Amino acid sequence: DFFAALDETKPLFGVAEEELGECYSGGILHFSPTMDSILNIGRQDIATVRNPNSMRLLTTLLHGPPGSGKTALAARLAIDSEFPFIKLISPQDMVGFNEPQKIGQLDKVFRDADKSPLSVVVVDNIELLVDWVPIGPRFSNNVLSALRNLLTKTPPKGRRRLVLCTTSKRSVLEQLDLLQYFTGQIAVPNVNSRDELAAVLRQKRSFDDREIAGALEIIQDLTGSGDVGVGIKRVLTAIERAKEASNPVERFAEIIAEAMAERRLYEDVRPAAY
Amino acid sequence: DFFAALDETKPLFGVAEEELGECYSGGILHFSPTMDSILNIGRQDIATVRNPNSMRLLTTLLHGPPGSGKTALAARLAIDSEFPFIKLISPQDMVGFNEPQKIGQLDKVFRDADKSPLSVVVVDNIELLVDWVPIGPRFSNNVLSALRNLLTKTPPKGRRRLVLCTTSKRSVLEQLDLLQYFTGQIAVPNVNSRDELAAVLRQKRSFDDREIAGALEIIQDLTGSGDVGVGIKRVLTAIERAKEASNPVERFAEIIAEAMAERRLYEDVRPAAY
Amino acid sequence: DFFAALDETKPLFGVAEEELGECYSGGILHFSPTMDSILNIGRQDIATVRNPNSMRLLTTLLHGPPGSGKTALAARLAIDSEFPFIKLISPQDMVGFNEPQKIGQLDKVFRDADKSPLSVVVVDNIELLVDWVPIGPRFSNNVLSALRNLLTKTPPKGRRRLVLCTTSKRSVLEQLDLLQYFTGQIAVPNVNSRDELAAVLRQKRSFDDREIAGALEIIQDLTGSGDVGVGIKRVLTAIERAKEASNPVERFAEIIAEAMAERRLYEDVRPAAY
Amino acid sequence: DFFAALDETKPLFGVAEEELGECYSGGILHFSPTMDSILNIGRQDIATVRNPNSMRLLTTLLHGPPGSGKTALAARLAIDSEFPFIKLISPQDMVGFNEPQKIGQLDKVFRDADKSPLSVVVVDNIELLVDWVPIGPRFSNNVLSALRNLLTKTPPKGRRRLVLCTTSKRSVLEQLDLLQYFTGQIAVPNVNSRDELAAVLRQKRSFDDREIAGALEIIQDLTGSGDVGVGIKRVLTAIERAKEASNPVERFAEIIAEAMAERRLYEDVRPAAY
Amino acid sequence: DFFAALDETKPLFGVAEEELGECYSGGILHFSPTMDSILNIGRQDIATVRNPNSMRLLTTLLHGPPGSGKTALAARLAIDSEFPFIKLISPQDMVGFNEPQKIGQLDKVFRDADKSPLSVVVVDNIELLVDWVPIGPRFSNNVLSALRNLLTKTPPKGRRRLVLCTTSKRSVLEQLDLLQYFTGQIAVPNVNSRDELAAVLRQKRSFDDREIAGALEIIQDLTGSGDVGVGIKRVLTAIERAKEASNPVERFAEIIAEAMAERRLYEDVRPAAY
Amino acid sequence: DFFAALDETKPLFGVAEEELGECYSGGILHFSPTMDSILNIGRQDIATVRNPNSMRLLTTLLHGPPGSGKTALAARLAIDSEFPFIKLISPQDMVGFNEPQKIGQLDKVFRDADKSPLSVVVVDNIELLVDWVPIGPRFSNNVLSALRNLLTKTPPKGRRRLVLCTTSKRSVLEQLDLLQYFTGQIAVPNVNSRDELAAVLRQKRSFDDREIAGALEIIQDLTGSGDVGVGIKRVLTAIERAKEASNPVERFAEIIAEAMAERRLYEDVRPAAY
Ligand SMILES: Nc1ncnc2c1ncn2[C@@H]1O[C@H](COP(=O)(O)OP(=O)(O)OP(=O)(O)O)[C@@H](O)[C@H]1O
Ligand SMILES: Nc1ncnc2c1ncn2[C@@H]1O[C@H](COP(=O)(O)OP(=O)(O)OP(=O)(O)O)[C@@H](O)[C@H]1O
Ligand SMILES: Nc1ncnc2c1ncn2[C@@H]1O[C@H](COP(=O)(O)OP(=O)(O)OP(=O)(O)O)[C@@H](O)[C@H]1O
Ligand SMILES: Nc1ncnc2c1ncn2[C@@H]1O[C@H](COP(=O)(O)OP(=O)(O)OP(=O)(O)O)[C@@H](O)[C@H]1O
Ligand SMILES: Nc1ncnc2c1ncn2[C@@H]1O[C@H](COP(=O)(O)OP(=O)(O)OP(=O)(O)O)[C@@H](O)[C@H]1O
Ligand SMILES: Nc1ncnc2c1ncn2[C@@H]1O[C@H](COP(=O)(O)OP(=O)(O)OP(=O)(O)O)[C@@H](O)[C@H]1O
Ligand SMILES: [Mg+2]
Ligand SMILES: [Mg+2]
Ligand SMILES: [Mg+2]
Ligand SMILES: [Mg+2]
Ligand SMILES: [Mg+2]
Ligand SMILES: [Mg+2]
Repeated sequence: DFFAALDETKPLFGVAEEELGECYSGGILHFSPTMDSILNIGRQDIATVRNPNSMRLLTTLLHGPPGSGKTALAARLAIDSEFPFIKLISPQDMVGFNEPQKIGQLDKVFRDADKSPLSVVVVDNIELLVDWVPIGPRFSNNVLSALRNLLTKTPPKGRRRLVLCTTSKRSVLEQLDLLQYFTGQIAVPNVNSRDELAAVLRQKRSFDDREIAGALEIIQDLTGSGDVGVGIKRVLTAIERAKEASNPVERFAEIIAEAMAERRLYEDVRPAAY
Repeated sequence: DFFAALDETKPLFGVAEEELGECYSGGILHFSPTMDSILNIGRQDIATVRNPNSMRLLTTLLHGPPGSGKTALAARLAIDSEFPFIKLISPQDMVGFNEPQKIGQLDKVFRDADKSPLSVVVVDNIELLVDWVPIGPRFSNNVLSALRNLLTKTPPKGRRRLVLCTTSKRSVLEQLDLLQYFTGQIAVPNVNSRDELAAVLRQKRSFDDREIAGALEIIQDLTGSGDVGVGIKRVLTAIERAKEASNPVERFAEIIAEAMAERRLYEDVRPAAY
Repeated sequence: DFFAALDETKPLFGVAEEELGECYSGGILHFSPTMDSILNIGRQDIATVRNPNSMRLLTTLLHGPPGSGKTALAARLAIDSEFPFIKLISPQDMVGFNEPQKIGQLDKVFRDADKSPLSVVVVDNIELLVDWVPIGPRFSNNVLSALRNLLTKTPPKGRRRLVLCTTSKRSVLEQLDLLQYFTGQIAVPNVNSRDELAAVLRQKRSFDDREIAGALEIIQDLTGSGDVGVGIKRVLTAIERAKEASNPVERFAEIIAEAMAERRLYEDVRPAAY
Repeated sequence: DFFAALDETKPLFGVAEEELGECYSGGILHFSPTMDSILNIGRQDIATVRNPNSMRLLTTLLHGPPGSGKTALAARLAIDSEFPFIKLISPQDMVGFNEPQKIGQLDKVFRDADKSPLSVVVVDNIELLVDWVPIGPRFSNNVLSALRNLLTKTPPKGRRRLVLCTTSKRSVLEQLDLLQYFTGQIAVPNVNSRDELAAVLRQKRSFDDREIAGALEIIQDLTGSGDVGVGIKRVLTAIERAKEASNPVERFAEIIAEAMAERRLYEDVRPAAY
Repeated sequence: DFFAALDETKPLFGVAEEELGECYSGGILHFSPTMDSILNIGRQDIATVRNPNSMRLLTTLLHGPPGSGKTALAARLAIDSEFPFIKLISPQDMVGFNEPQKIGQLDKVFRDADKSPLSVVVVDNIELLVDWVPIGPRFSNNVLSALRNLLTKTPPKGRRRLVLCTTSKRSVLEQLDLLQYFTGQIAVPNVNSRDELAAVLRQKRSFDDREIAGALEIIQDLTGSGDVGVGIKRVLTAIERAKEASNPVERFAEIIAEAMAERRLYEDVRPAAY
Repeated sequence: DFFAALDETKPLFGVAEEELGECYSGGILHFSPTMDSILNIGRQDIATVRNPNSMRLLTTLLHGPPGSGKTALAARLAIDSEFPFIKLISPQDMVGFNEPQKIGQLDKVFRDADKSPLSVVVVDNIELLVDWVPIGPRFSNNVLSALRNLLTKTPPKGRRRLVLCTTSKRSVLEQLDLLQYFTGQIAVPNVNSRDELAAVLRQKRSFDDREIAGALEIIQDLTGSGDVGVGIKRVLTAIERAKEASNPVERFAEIIAEAMAERRLYEDVRPAAY
């Protein structure tokens, strides 16, 4: 099995790879078949870029609600490509950078990538990279322009590049007129159904089957809803926080219910349709 | 009793702690059972962060009306954690700082925290830190971006961090799209009922029971309302100001009534619902 | 009599005091009982700050229409406090200062105040200090932020401070979300009734009783109104300007009538209600 | 006769005065009785400032449509005052100045004035000084603030100052909230009636009586209106331009008619009412 | 004949004049009587400025649709004046200039002009000079202010100046409140009728009479309109482009028809009315 | 055949030409007769500029949806001109440039061009060059102004220039008021019909006729539409990506269908009408 094999991948070329590995240190849980098809499409893009008779550049956007696992999946694909150059660009590593410094950093990574015959560049959280704030709205026009030009700049002859971007605000990218510059888009979903939530809980072994059933029931009671719609990251956090309470099952259900209530803040969950 | 025991906590490591202690030098009055449950949830977050098998980062927001005691409670939780690194970040200590200086200061505290295996960082009055003004609205986009990135940046391996933030403008943080980056939220209420107000007055021993009854009655007369809805800080100030008047009971009632009239300015009191 | 005694207060510690004294060199006329109650409430705040068992910080706002005497009253209270540190901060003394210079100046005064066990800081014309212009509206966000932080910063242990601010644009401060940071507010009224205007004229001895009656009648004729609603400063100016005319009584009435017509420009006269 | 006498005033102290004299080198034509009453009110303000027992500061605004003679009248009053310090501040002399340079220049003139026991400062075309543009609208906030503070800053003891400002955009000053800082306002009118226009033409001796009648008739025909409403400056220009045409009377009428058509652009002609 | 005589004018003082001459190197075609009356009014303004008993400053605006010949006509008038100082200020010569550099350049030209007893300054394409963009709208406030002050600044004694400005966006200048500062305005029209278009074609001798009739008919067919309304510059370009096609008459008609379709973009054609 | 002959054109003067050649390294497929007429009109403009008796400057805009082949066609025309100076200006080569650097670069290319008797300058993706973002909207005013001036600046005597610009946002240029400065406009269409799509597939030889028919049918099924409307660039990419899938025909159809769904984002496809 291809994906099983991938689980054994080990660091090949130092820091960048280690950092990328950290992004899915919690592992990739297969709580729904969508996980496989996401990894499958990503693998095809890698193969297209590797093919010397094809385009020299593909740019793919992974989008989905907060904490749905976008960074983990992009990191996994990057490492699985086994391309000689892989690199993660993250806004969290640029605190205190001014615009020229950010753009310089972005530009440098793309120039470095162009020295390698095959490269994967992961640009994480584009909405944070451009300092997006919905009031106004405001954002860094200069970083956005730089990104737009870097995304569409064909690598020099003999160089081939895959760019993987992530965002939890696809509609923001639409407003910024950025979507048209991607050659492909992949939607990453929440833990959406009770069954998927149960699958996560079972795989994490924090609750036994009876407790899982109990938790699902309390969630149903608190929210009046049979759906879930919470990111995998938040589910994993809820498990850990609940452990410290005197009543972990109830506390877990409560935290999930709170997360579901806040969900209305994240309206960016629309799957790509045609 | 846990909280009684906490009352004896003494400074462990100098300045930061002393400063935090100053934040509740007026003490924590238990005028309603909500106080206990707030401290209880905070304690669980501390335990989760301390657990080496859990997430390396939790971020909790204390929100509530002006003067409701948010800073006092956050300071108390920070000191009670007994973590080796505790630090208060306050906009009042940054008068005259330009944006890069503020961001540098924020960044430094988080870097220092990352040198310690366990840390609590208190970020006080986020709305002031980002220089929020409702007209426009205006705010510091750069400080906001820095904060957003610092709040979500996982500490390095072997480091674990709790971030406690306070705000009297939760709706502002919602507009700034900042709420989604907190792993938990705690609402801190006003002195809301006549009984709670009486409890405060009794514990402060400034008026005898008859005077307290008289004050409540005058407030009812002046405002036509049986509720109170004034922050504990303002109640304590009213007691002191009234002492200088020739008619302290009437003056106290008058000041509370004025505060209630101004309350419409602070519409940020909604308890977290689900 | 308390206020009569105050009239003899003399400069104690140099420049700041002399400057403050200049602010009411025209004297404080007792044309209405409100004057006494304003001075009385101010005196209580001074006493609260002086009390070592009370809050270390009070901040009081004097607001009222242009020329109603806010600066004169604040200056008078500051001098009457006999606190060892008193200081007037006035935007008129900062022409040509850029934002950092203004903030530096503000910060310095508050730091100097913190060296004294007891201090009064008068911050005059806040709307001018923040460069408020109604078009836009525009204002200095940085000065506003600095002010907000300075107003709420508790003095260090053993230091106690009273801040007296003035503004003729209370509604502006409300829009700027600044009102909530004051522990108290005092409304300063215009010369509002015919009787109050007559009292001013009598005390200034520029017109005899018959002339006063004549002037009031002409004003009534010109404006069709029995009210006055003009600031004491403007009334005093009208008296002086009228002296140079061939027909002083008519000219005085005319100038007052013009002032009444312009009044619609100053809609900030609402007394504090509850 | 007072005003006749004034016609002989000669330069007393060099450049500033010469420059001011240039402003009415075309003379002051008495085409309507309003001219006398404007000069009369101005004279009273001068007398009030000169009186050592009165206010140390008066600020008067001359407002009226473009080319109505505001600068000429202010210059005339300044020179007539015979105060030892008189100075004209004009935006036309500050082309290419940045904001700090403009403010520095303004500040310097007021400081220089404060060295003299009696001073008149003329600030010409305030709307240009603050770089007003109706789109946006835009203007220099910093120059406006500086001006506001300079206008209201009382001169030091023993110094007395009259400030004369001009503007063709009174409504702009109203929007900028600047009107309230003037102690007096004077409206300067256009050449408004056919009789006033005829008076100007007769005094300039360019046309004989029959030609004047002819011109008035053509204007009536072209515009269908019996009013005029054109600034004295434009009328004088029309006379000169018409001289070069083959048919001066018709050409004069045509230019006036064009000016009347453009008038709708200048809606700032409202006389001060009460 | 006056205008015929002008055709022989030769360069008198070097570069500036040569550059101005370039502006009508295509010649001035007399395709309509309006051309004569435009040159006639311009000539009167020149005479007024030359007259030492008249105003020292006139400012005239030539406005009309794009390519209607404004620059050519202004250049022609400037050279015809035979004034010792003539100069063209063109935004195209200021690419890459920042605001202070542009203003410095403008200021310098006007200062140089003031060294000459008689000067003509042509300021071309004011809307480009102030960097006007309709979105926002945006423009350079500082350049606009400088221009406004330079346009209205009277030359020193003994110096006389004519300023000729051009714009294809008269309505923009109206919005910018700039129109009121001109002492005169001249409208420059398109090639508006079929007869005028035929006159141009005949004078250029590119088509014979039959071809001209054919072209007019095709235009009528393509557009359904008997009017033309295209700038002379564009008509001349159409003639040249058509020459390269296999079917010049049809191609000429097609290009004119395209130009007519785009015309709706240029709504600035309103003749000055009264 | 003219265009067949062009296919053999080889680099003449180094880098610029090589870079331009890269722009259509995928070749120019003749999938519709529009391709010929586009190249034909471009050729006429080249001939007009070459003619020494014609205008010294033509500026042509190629506009059309993203990936429709604008850059490829402009590059082809530039190389076919065989003018001694040809140059491509591309925003992708200016990442990290500030405004003055961009303008300096633009200015330099135009100055260099002016050293050559005949030049073609290609300005690619004007909307990116001016950093256009639809939110706000925002764009670089300074770059836009520079571009506007460079586009309209006549080359010096003896120099002749053709400027070819491309944009996928013609409506943006309309809003920016830039369209009026072009002497001609050419619309570049998508692969619009099923027949055109089939022609592309046949010429690329990736699918046999049966597969092509199958793909068209699936597209019809997925989208319910008989049209296509996808840029040639995207079609070529779809072919390459599909090759890596297990079911290339279905995958090709799927990718085209996705592209058609996204098309609503690109509303700039209106052909130039009259
Ligand atoms: N199927 C899965 N897909 C992705 N992540 C998974 C999966 N199963 C478990 N995880 C774990 O869940 C976490 C997902 O977090 P991740 O940071 O990738 O989410 P995200 O969508 O990038 O969040 P954000 O919106 O905050 O950027 C990781 O710790 C990862 O190891
Ligand atoms: N139950 C309580 N909870 C919190 N504070 C209390 C309580 N009882 C008394 N206090 C005192 O009330 C004051 C609360 O002030 P604090 O500054 O913490 O309020 P805040 O909500 O942070 O105000 P602000 O909105 O101005 O930041 C402190 O002096 C604290 O000692
Ligand atoms: N009862 C009074 N209260 C205040 N001022 C008085 C009174 N009687 C007389 N005065 C005189 O009136 C003047 C009031 O002017 P002051 O500058 O204090 O007004 P203000 O409200 O601060 O004006 P502004 O709105 O311009 O700041 C002073 O000269 C003061 O001496
Ligand atoms: N009665 C009058 N009042 C004012 N100016 C007069 C009068 N009679 C003749 N003049 C002449 O008319 C001209 C008035 O021009 P002035 O520049 O003063 O007008 P303005 O209102 O300041 O114009 P602007 O609105 O352009 O500033 C001067 O040349 C002056 O000599
Ligand atoms: N009657 C005419 N009036 C003006 N220009 C004419 C006339 N006849 C021919 N021309 C020629 O037409 C051209 C007019 O172009 P010009 O640049 O002056 O127009 P413009 O209105 O200034 O254009 P733009 O709006 O682009 O600034 C010149 O080449 C000029 O020689
Ligand atoms: N008929 C054609 N016209 C243009 N390009 C063609 C044609 N046939 C094949 N191609 C190829 O299609 C591609 C067109 O891409 P090109 O970059 O020119 O499109 P574009 O419209 O400039 O895209 P963008 O909107 O991204 O700038 C090129 O690789 C070119 O070789
Ligand atoms: Mg992520
Ligand atoms: Mg607090
Ligand atoms: Mg005051
Ligand atoms: Mg004037
Ligand atoms: Mg022109
Ligand atoms: Mg392109």
